[in-house]
Amino acid sequence: MKFFELLQVDSKVLMIFIPFVLCGCTKEEEVSTTTTDPLANLEWIDLSYAFDSTTLYWPNNPDGFQHRVDAEGVTDLGYYYSSYTILTPEHGGTHLDAPIHFYENGETVDELPLSKLTGKAVVIDVSEKALADRDYLIDSVAVLAWEQEHGKIPAQTMVLFRTGYGKFYPDRKGYFGTAKTGTEAIPELHFPGIQPETALWLAKSRNVKAVGLDTPSLDYGQSKDFAAHQALMENQIPGFENVANLDQLPATGIYVLALPMKIKGGSGGPLRIIATVLE
Amino acid sequence: MKFFELLQVDSKVLMIFIPFVLCGCTKEEEVSTTTTDPLANLEWIDLSYAFDSTTLYWPNNPDGFQHRVDAEGVTDLGYYYSSYTILTPEHGGTHLDAPIHFYENGETVDELPLSKLTGKAVVIDVSEKALADRDYLIDSVAVLAWEQEHGKIPAQTMVLFRTGYGKFYPDRKGYFGTAKTGTEAIPELHFPGIQPETALWLAKSRNVKAVGLDTPSLDYGQSKDFAAHQALMENQIPGFENVANLDQLPATGIYVLALPMKIKGGSGGPLRIIATVLE
Ligand SMILES: [Zn+2]
Ligand SMILES: [Zn+2]
Repeated sequence: MKFFELLQVDSKVLMIFIPFVLCGCTKEEEVSTTTTDPLANLEWIDLSYAFDSTTLYWPNNPDGFQHRVDAEGVTDLGYYYSSYTILTPEHGGTHLDAPIHFYENGETVDELPLSKLTGKAVVIDVSEKALADRDYLIDSVAVLAWEQEHGKIPAQTMVLFRTGYGKFYPDRKGYFGTAKTGTEAIPELHFPGIQPETALWLAKSRNVKAVGLDTPSLDYGQSKDFAAHQALMENQIPGFENVANLDQLPATGIYVLALPMKIKGGSGGPLRIIATVLE
Repeated sequence: MKFFELLQVDSKVLMIFIPFVLCGCTKEEEVSTTTTDPLANLEWIDLSYAFDSTTLYWPNNPDGFQHRVDAEGVTDLGYYYSSYTILTPEHGGTHLDAPIHFYENGETVDELPLSKLTGKAVVIDVSEKALADRDYLIDSVAVLAWEQEHGKIPAQTMVLFRTGYGKFYPDRKGYFGTAKTGTEAIPELHFPGIQPETALWLAKSRNVKAVGLDTPSLDYGQSKDFAAHQALMENQIPGFENVANLDQLPATGIYVLALPMKIKGGSGGPLRIIATVLE
């Protein structure tokens, strides 16, 4: 059932209950409003990993995620109270890449309109090839094969690639191809990504709204110039990295909300990305 | 040139190339799919402030929001690159209070199911009384007056209180009632909040899903024991604080998504909260 149809059902339900709603509701009526309201039952799937000490950052990042205890326990006044401070690089865990990450005139996190962070999405499963080859590059052939089955990607769609590497998260060796950290780990990164020409083609010929995937980077591990990032971001297209649970989504009929922490001037940031299946 | 205009230009360019694309769809079909899809036009209102150096934290917080530059400029390889690290207390700016903030057995941020963070919402405008009295406590009389007009709050509704104090944000003096910082500022806090008995009544008699408002705290500035927090959180009800733009919402017919950064074990955290008007 489509979201729009849900709204119409809702209006009908409301009409039935309007005569009862003026404070006189019995508990029974109130409950039936809730249970027959399809919006109340809209199910969201979380595509976000939690941030903790296991959260994966680029191998040369010295900080990682830090969760500092400011208060934790019973206070002098007798009530429990806990509070923490966080430190995190913008790029790690499930996060957004804002266009300014690789494009000087690109939009920052806070400048991205909600219309660019919400909308219909498709999932393109390239896991068979990607799991067979750690240096696999997602190319237009893979996208066109998907389109043969599901139809052309409509303009302003969010495209999510499922490489299957999500199953390794947060195991560093499985996910990055090396368990090493520090600068010396960089040449040993092996995980799939998007071919730069295909990134440009998605921007220009498919007019995509955003691109996400279940790897640490839009570019593959062996990239030196992050050309897929550049191609997308020069076209003001944001990216979603380390997206979780893509195996729980169908290929089409998905509505996605990708809400980053609203960091003024941010090049990216922690992302809470969720999806609902429309059809 | 606006992004939307760019898309139109882009579409014209695409039309020329369509005959050469492998997939059989014509451009005409693609455009009509997009423009007739009501989901594509769903409009979201951002109820979140951006995080920056002006972000308001509790007066005795020593850290505030920090945005550290890790990279910003053209790299040796010739492309632009920017990246930052953030530090923030969980409670500041537009943020979530998870039940564990004031209840030892409460849910942490990452434990809150999406069903508790999404759903129908109402806005109860108490701004007339709140702006007339900085120590105003939102009581059940105010809620019942709202229900006289709009009907009983259905179970599992998110309740957003509009005190009108959002108009002061981020001016510390207007918002908190004092421009002072440090521990000595605490006794001088004057801003409205929820009467503890009413918080408990919302939990028990209205079975609310979540409570939010446009002030720094669910409890009023003069509170010593944060009893409204305690009442809600002992009932596993999360709170939203420093919610923005509540003046842009009607009283009913609202669907809200409140997506916090998913902090494992977090007592709260940066919140991206958005709403759409259903009717
Ligand atoms: Zn990134
Ligand atoms: Zn708080």
